[in-house]
Amino acid sequence: MNTDLKNNDVQHYMQTLGQQARAASRAMAKADTATKNKALLAIARAIRGEAASLRAANELDLVAAKNAGMEAAMLDRLSLSEKAIETMALGLEQIAALPDPIGEISNMKYRPSGIQVGQMRVPLGVIGIIYEARPNVTVDAAGLCIKSGNATILRGGSEAIHCNRALAALVKQGLQEAGLPEQAVQVVDTTDRAAVGALITMPQYVDVIVPRGGKGLIERLMREATVPMIKHLDGICHVYIDDRADLEKAIAIGFNAKCHRYGTCNTMETLLVAERVADQILPLLAVEYLKEQVQLRCDSTAYAILQDYPYLARADENDWSTEYLAPILAVKVVGDMDEAIAHINQYSSKHTEAIITEDYSRAMAFLREVDSASVMVNASTRFADGFEYGLGAEIGISNDKLHARGPVGLEGLTSLKYVVFGHGEVRA
Amino acid sequence: MNTDLKNNDVQHYMQTLGQQARAASRAMAKADTATKNKALLAIARAIRGEAASLRAANELDLVAAKNAGMEAAMLDRLSLSEKAIETMALGLEQIAALPDPIGEISNMKYRPSGIQVGQMRVPLGVIGIIYEARPNVTVDAAGLCIKSGNATILRGGSEAIHCNRALAALVKQGLQEAGLPEQAVQVVDTTDRAAVGALITMPQYVDVIVPRGGKGLIERLMREATVPMIKHLDGICHVYIDDRADLEKAIAIGFNAKCHRYGTCNTMETLLVAERVADQILPLLAVEYLKEQVQLRCDSTAYAILQDYPYLARADENDWSTEYLAPILAVKVVGDMDEAIAHINQYSSKHTEAIITEDYSRAMAFLREVDSASVMVNASTRFADGFEYGLGAEIGISNDKLHARGPVGLEGLTSLKYVVFGHGEVRA
Repeated sequence: MNTDLKNNDVQHYMQTLGQQARAASRAMAKADTATKNKALLAIARAIRGEAASLRAANELDLVAAKNAGMEAAMLDRLSLSEKAIETMALGLEQIAALPDPIGEISNMKYRPSGIQVGQMRVPLGVIGIIYEARPNVTVDAAGLCIKSGNATILRGGSEAIHCNRALAALVKQGLQEAGLPEQAVQVVDTTDRAAVGALITMPQYVDVIVPRGGKGLIERLMREATVPMIKHLDGICHVYIDDRADLEKAIAIGFNAKCHRYGTCNTMETLLVAERVADQILPLLAVEYLKEQVQLRCDSTAYAILQDYPYLARADENDWSTEYLAPILAVKVVGDMDEAIAHINQYSSKHTEAIITEDYSRAMAFLREVDSASVMVNASTRFADGFEYGLGAEIGISNDKLHARGPVGLEGLTSLKYVVFGHGEVRA
Repeated sequence: MNTDLKNNDVQHYMQTLGQQARAASRAMAKADTATKNKALLAIARAIRGEAASLRAANELDLVAAKNAGMEAAMLDRLSLSEKAIETMALGLEQIAALPDPIGEISNMKYRPSGIQVGQMRVPLGVIGIIYEARPNVTVDAAGLCIKSGNATILRGGSEAIHCNRALAALVKQGLQEAGLPEQAVQVVDTTDRAAVGALITMPQYVDVIVPRGGKGLIERLMREATVPMIKHLDGICHVYIDDRADLEKAIAIGFNAKCHRYGTCNTMETLLVAERVADQILPLLAVEYLKEQVQLRCDSTAYAILQDYPYLARADENDWSTEYLAPILAVKVVGDMDEAIAHINQYSSKHTEAIITEDYSRAMAFLREVDSASVMVNASTRFADGFEYGLGAEIGISNDKLHARGPVGLEGLTSLKYVVFGHGEVRA
């Protein structure tokens, strides 16, 4: 009985947040660029000014998380160092400096009827963001939503609740200073998991959900959500070294794509090498991978070529669809580019793939035929990133095809509506 | 027991269609413009050549539908007249003449790292279309999907099954003639309703669902679908006549938006008139509406002004959110533009709204603040249409904000992926 009541309370609480967000979104859509920037800069100032109390709030979270046995990597993400606080403030200032996407009118053309038709960029409305215990996401996401004229409901990992509460208060203060509704950014102030279930099933109040979290979370949302999502699944990225690859580029990129950082979604997880050059290239690459003690999980052909490599293993079927996020690489020798593309389209998570080749026609065919969010020629997969692409900021990377694909910046938080300038025209 | 088995059969059948569509979509994505156009023109020829057998198949549907007591308006939509057959063939030829959206690369720019980043337009993949017993939609939808390089699974109303089967055979023939996979267009060949349930819950095979049907269908899909949708809800469109409107434009547009056609989604359903000019404008508009015997459902102020109008009624709360699709119009007098916008943002289905004004600042504010797919100044809402907007063809009109808003043409069936031209760059 008690559980039901509690669940009803959470439902009611989330409905209230939803209604308030919807109302605030109307004011945000009207807000001009200067006002939105004023709020962003005020929040940055408040964060710097309240660094000490933010760290105190964070300490409460950290102590509780340590007692609960949180892993070191997650503790690191939860921790708000002085540097992390400064980075959050700088991030807001960078968002303030970006061009305002809202109100831009494009493709305005006269039609034979006499009307002029074009499209205007407008906010999506209310954006729900679900993320892990990373307090910096609270501020980044709030900043991007404010700049793009949206209201947002933020649901961060419960382990960061003290810290998120403190940040929410500073965001509200900044919004108020700029004369914007403080309910434009609301942090869900309950650790009850039912709050997530409510947030993803109220399309009347929430226009899109951006989940930033593990595969388990996203798979749950995919089953339960009735609100559309811009979702980020895993990154099983491939590099294919063609038999017409430039050797130097192949080795530099093959090494960089795997070893620049292991834990990122744009890191290469499977290397495909053309049969005709495998004998030559794999041993040279192995010299590089050895420096980082990368384990190579090879198909039988690659295994035979690399038999003296100290960290060698045989790949099984699972390796082709595993996101290692570690110094481990699956290696497969393929007959030609078509076989590489077939492998990629079967096993890739459609995040980022690259071909290394000097052959023009193959480069063009690879770009066209590989069905992934980012497709590259002679560049490291590690470039698949909102900052590297020039988006200025990034709310996430979308593995979806609808609406936004690949790195999602401010524009991904907007929509286009049609606008018509008439002069009294009627339909004949 | 038997029902369960049958249901399993439908599930299995739909899975097979899905797998086949996914495989065909890969070939469609690679198909060049000339090949896709060849298929479209071959289908148009086949439809003209087989007009007699199409009409015979249609006759089977019509007889069954009449026996089942189908309404006249629906029978009309189900019927394939000689003219309707010619219109389908012409439609395909028009789609063949449109520019191919696929492969277009835009915004290609150098980044400080040395890579060039841009976006390439690509097909969505597999598109599921669910529609009523309107055989022309089978051909229109197939044509748009072929041109945009997608595979499609078509689920038309069961009352058109004979006719849709015959059309499906002609489409397959045209695809074969052009050397494209015949499974690029598949018509669901069962009238079992479980087929719809299966189609909307297989995201592994279907990338987007376009439902074209009544509100009941769409509401069911919204509850059950796990595949994203481009959906078309109702059209509760508004015209606001400002106190700085040009009288002649106000009367022409106020009449045209309601009386040009009653059954279309871009028809005005509520007229809002500024208080200061209501006395003057409403009687003049009533003269026009009287010619068409339009019933006016008025708020108390409008009722008092129009008390001598013969088809007068009092509006209640429901009228503000009713899509009449009939010679009925809700009329409300508002204090000013802000009140009009508040009314619209509360009651509109976010399809199309227009302001009639000569005031520049109000026109700009209305365009920005009204949150609908099409927002117009001094033009009839009836222009909200893919052909009038210059899209060349239309798969539907979206009330959604994500991905596609307003009339959806070929471009709405595509997505953008990032492409990177590198020269050996690696992340530093």
